[in-house]
Amino acid sequence: MKVGIVMGSKSDYPVVEKTEQMLKKFGVAYETRVISAHRTPLQAHDFAANAEENGIEVIIAAAGKAAHLAGVLAAYTTLPVIGIPVKSSTLDGLDSLLSVVQMPKGIPVATVAVNGAENAGILAVQILAGGHPELKDKLAAYKKELADSVIADDAEMQEK
Amino acid sequence: MKVGIVMGSKSDYPVVEKTEQMLKKFGVAYETRVISAHRTPLQAHDFAANAEENGIEVIIAAAGKAAHLAGVLAAYTTLPVIGIPVKSSTLDGLDSLLSVVQMPKGIPVATVAVNGAENAGILAVQILAGGHPELKDKLAAYKKELADSVIADDAEMQEK
Amino acid sequence: MKVGIVMGSKSDYPVVEKTEQMLKKFGVAYETRVISAHRTPLQAHDFAANAEENGIEVIIAAAGKAAHLAGVLAAYTTLPVIGIPVKSSTLDGLDSLLSVVQMPKGIPVATVAVNGAENAGILAVQILAGGHPELKDKLAAYKKELADSVIADDAEMQEK
Amino acid sequence: MKVGIVMGSKSDYPVVEKTEQMLKKFGVAYETRVISAHRTPLQAHDFAANAEENGIEVIIAAAGKAAHLAGVLAAYTTLPVIGIPVKSSTLDGLDSLLSVVQMPKGIPVATVAVNGAENAGILAVQILAGGHPELKDKLAAYKKELADSVIADDAEMQEK
Amino acid sequence: MKVGIVMGSKSDYPVVEKTEQMLKKFGVAYETRVISAHRTPLQAHDFAANAEENGIEVIIAAAGKAAHLAGVLAAYTTLPVIGIPVKSSTLDGLDSLLSVVQMPKGIPVATVAVNGAENAGILAVQILAGGHPELKDKLAAYKKELADSVIADDAEMQEK
Amino acid sequence: MKVGIVMGSKSDYPVVEKTEQMLKKFGVAYETRVISAHRTPLQAHDFAANAEENGIEVIIAAAGKAAHLAGVLAAYTTLPVIGIPVKSSTLDGLDSLLSVVQMPKGIPVATVAVNGAENAGILAVQILAGGHPELKDKLAAYKKELADSVIADDAEMQEK
Amino acid sequence: MKVGIVMGSKSDYPVVEKTEQMLKKFGVAYETRVISAHRTPLQAHDFAANAEENGIEVIIAAAGKAAHLAGVLAAYTTLPVIGIPVKSSTLDGLDSLLSVVQMPKGIPVATVAVNGAENAGILAVQILAGGHPELKDKLAAYKKELADSVIADDAEMQEK
Amino acid sequence: MKVGIVMGSKSDYPVVEKTEQMLKKFGVAYETRVISAHRTPLQAHDFAANAEENGIEVIIAAAGKAAHLAGVLAAYTTLPVIGIPVKSSTLDGLDSLLSVVQMPKGIPVATVAVNGAENAGILAVQILAGGHPELKDKLAAYKKELADSVIADDAEMQEK
Repeated sequence: MKVGIVMGSKSDYPVVEKTEQMLKKFGVAYETRVISAHRTPLQAHDFAANAEENGIEVIIAAAGKAAHLAGVLAAYTTLPVIGIPVKSSTLDGLDSLLSVVQMPKGIPVATVAVNGAENAGILAVQILAGGHPELKDKLAAYKKELADSVIADDAEMQEK
Repeated sequence: MKVGIVMGSKSDYPVVEKTEQMLKKFGVAYETRVISAHRTPLQAHDFAANAEENGIEVIIAAAGKAAHLAGVLAAYTTLPVIGIPVKSSTLDGLDSLLSVVQMPKGIPVATVAVNGAENAGILAVQILAGGHPELKDKLAAYKKELADSVIADDAEMQEK
Repeated sequence: MKVGIVMGSKSDYPVVEKTEQMLKKFGVAYETRVISAHRTPLQAHDFAANAEENGIEVIIAAAGKAAHLAGVLAAYTTLPVIGIPVKSSTLDGLDSLLSVVQMPKGIPVATVAVNGAENAGILAVQILAGGHPELKDKLAAYKKELADSVIADDAEMQEK
Repeated sequence: MKVGIVMGSKSDYPVVEKTEQMLKKFGVAYETRVISAHRTPLQAHDFAANAEENGIEVIIAAAGKAAHLAGVLAAYTTLPVIGIPVKSSTLDGLDSLLSVVQMPKGIPVATVAVNGAENAGILAVQILAGGHPELKDKLAAYKKELADSVIADDAEMQEK
Repeated sequence: MKVGIVMGSKSDYPVVEKTEQMLKKFGVAYETRVISAHRTPLQAHDFAANAEENGIEVIIAAAGKAAHLAGVLAAYTTLPVIGIPVKSSTLDGLDSLLSVVQMPKGIPVATVAVNGAENAGILAVQILAGGHPELKDKLAAYKKELADSVIADDAEMQEK
Repeated sequence: MKVGIVMGSKSDYPVVEKTEQMLKKFGVAYETRVISAHRTPLQAHDFAANAEENGIEVIIAAAGKAAHLAGVLAAYTTLPVIGIPVKSSTLDGLDSLLSVVQMPKGIPVATVAVNGAENAGILAVQILAGGHPELKDKLAAYKKELADSVIADDAEMQEK
Repeated sequence: MKVGIVMGSKSDYPVVEKTEQMLKKFGVAYETRVISAHRTPLQAHDFAANAEENGIEVIIAAAGKAAHLAGVLAAYTTLPVIGIPVKSSTLDGLDSLLSVVQMPKGIPVATVAVNGAENAGILAVQILAGGHPELKDKLAAYKKELADSVIADDAEMQEK
Repeated sequence: MKVGIVMGSKSDYPVVEKTEQMLKKFGVAYETRVISAHRTPLQAHDFAANAEENGIEVIIAAAGKAAHLAGVLAAYTTLPVIGIPVKSSTLDGLDSLLSVVQMPKGIPVATVAVNGAENAGILAVQILAGGHPELKDKLAAYKKELADSVIADDAEMQEK
């Protein structure tokens, strides 16, 4: 059981790092790659076409601007591909979001929010849990942790 | 193995129907529900909180405008939730898209394109294939079918 | 007479604080809560379903990104719900605004401007004034205060 | 107890009519006016400044394009003002929405969705219910009616 | 011959100041006022209704967010009204722009770019030049000055 | 006294015709031209550079998509130039609007609403009235006509 | 000398046909292909990687929604790639435009307007003219033809 | 063989400088000019009309806001014109992008990403390579360099 994390450029790592942290929290193995849909398209092909064989069960792809990476990887695999639109220096993330989410019929990309790196990790775990039921308790525990944190904040707010 | 399809309003059925057709094509069972995050919130809670127990492995939620349905269902389950933003009569689908995809940290929704109902179905199958490997061949066959169809169109175009 | 202020995350407090200040100015009691539509949905249900019984007459909900909080609370109550879309780090508030304001038929949310926390407070007072006429004079006085402040600025500008 | 409905142009009536129908359903009296913030500004002043005296408790204003009507009325009264942004022939309602909702500090407009005429009516009833508790049962009944309708649609869908 | 400059809030002065500087450059008299369409609507009425009588020939109005000021002034006068949409802290100026420019039939506002304060001043001078032909030479000289400045920058760039 | 109306393409005439009608209503002479900033740039230069000499006092330019026409004409004249952004078949008029209104410092274009052809005509008359005071009464009469029409609609609505 | 025209789906042909017509007008040979970046990625690779060898000097790629085609082809060739964003049924072409134009550093796509099929053809001819100077006269003649057509429309308009 | 680089204002130089660096890298000569479509339109005409005669084979134009420069130059030449939309202080580059890319039929502008200065340079080299085949090897080498850089980043990432 392994997640393949791919970013289109090393500069996306501050976003992608949060995906890694989330997967670590769930004890899910991952490998992180820098592969560009446009600059290293053959590597993109190789990575995606061989991902399943290499033990990868879910792919997470992060890219900005005309963010083709997730779609390009999805073209070469039937594994679920999660896309993280990365906000770049212009257009406030709208370009990345639309480039990732508006995939044509036949090749879906499971898109999370702009810079939604933690959620990409959680979604990967939710998907993996289908074939790895031991993750279900961890997901339930995490959901409780989220709730507890909000409940604690709520208690603190009410004490004010 | 079952997919739970939920639409926020009966009027979303022309979109959702294409999800059903895709799941049928893959021989994946589904149940289709009309549940509103705002008009029947208790039903939304009941559906999502009991989905796993009821044999559902993936949830697909379709809604328009301030499309909270996918997020509301995701709040009550750790199953993967796929969101279909439905285009409504104003704002050309942008409101639905942003309401579905921009989920805060902790509760992801796997978002597909505006009105991307077929892709929601395919994504559900890709997710299910993790625990149901018999679907993998069907996904590969579908991918080939997609390619063959484009190749046929290409041949026809070149003959012109 | 009490206003229930709810924020989706503790991080929304710098916005919400301005609502509190406005209500204090009008001498209107409030309680402030941190409740997430997605992380503590049961608390959201409990809060909204019992709000009226607990003496709350107007609810104000502040949230960002896919800001479902106001809509989710409105689903469980017939009290007026005011929504404050909170600007987050991407998309400049447009996602929050559309998620709050574009509510489907049947469940309105009275939406104010992005980060319009003061106006949420004033609107709550205007609504309360229907059943608490003693607030009317305070509203008129506040309106005069607003005008006087602009008139003073105008005088100062003309002296230049 | 009366609601004042104002539209900026007679051509907005197909939208506004749905507000009237909603108010009729709740047995709430209303008067409907055509008053333009730009073409009959004095009438706008007179209407808003005298609304309270004339027995109006909530104002609903519908306008399109640079939709100033709700804000202009709100400037002359401390009654709650509900704004309906009306979609016009260009820009898909975004101009109307932003012109209505983005009110500066001090003068709120309770904004509903683009063309959200029914919700404007419901919101008015929710506001009125503060001072007219007899409306509360009707609101609860309406909420049940909404739920029942969705539940019926759901049942029908499941029978398929 | 005088231009009336109005801003909706003192905080718009850093923008408006550039309009003043431009008018000074052309030797055109102006008075600068702080008048809010929403907080001092009666002052807005008085200013606009009496502007012509007070020797004002062109009005310039600067406001942000739901920027109704220019339209509200235009409602009370037949003088040309120039609108400056002011960028505020959310939505990057789009709300201001659409609120100013999308005026309905009958009441135009001559809109310049977001924060386009200098151009509002120049446009005012171009309009005044119709009845004050002595300004025409100044406008021609200014156009030459603009060109010379670009030509100088061009020469410097070519020397590099 | 003459207004020069220019459209970028013959296909803009259904919009521009409403400008002509408005000018006719005010008894203001005009000439209407088809000149493209991109296809007949020399004609654009000749028209604008000689406009004043040819008795034109205000220029109105209508164009769609990357609507450069108004800005290009403004580059060659110090007459006031009014821009009408024309909605084309994609992007709902936003491209035209931004291309017309966002002029850089030094060369203003007085922009009206997308397809706001009538208002372009009225604005031209307001500008002309500076040097042709006989138009002032007509403008006042038109303003009254607008008000009367709304008042009549209002009366009719109240009779219902 | 040949242009390679590629569309992502047969349904884009009504747009692409106008590119063919333009190339025919200039006597430039072309081949038209249906190749999907997502459904036939290997064909996309083969086409682009061998384009130069096959006598293609410029590639034109038309696609809608998350329009990755032009970028994907550009990844495999150093030939100039022209992108035509095709308007699809939602979001009015904005998704296609941003997906095509916002290419990251290193791999440009020469983007034309949404549905700008004729201009893609003309741009291809302008590019080809660098190595095929015999096209220059045709381009000059076409420019004259464009001007003549506008001049004729202008004459007709003035006769009215 | 020379590229003509034009910026609308000296303040665009930090963007344009990256185009120069890219051309230097490829050993392609260029001249850089400051010419404004609106402030020095005659210079724009002269530059574009004589560009070919002056040995220029490709024009690159960078401008912000209502960015007419590329279109205006394209009007006077049949050389390929590449447009760089420059992000300005409001509207996040959307105004510049739409003003550059949405050119009407007949006069294309080859548009790159907002602030996509490097890509403008690369695209120019790709275009030049048609008539100057010696550039083809350099383009292939650059493509390899891009790939190698990503591959090195990928290796480094995997070592972590």
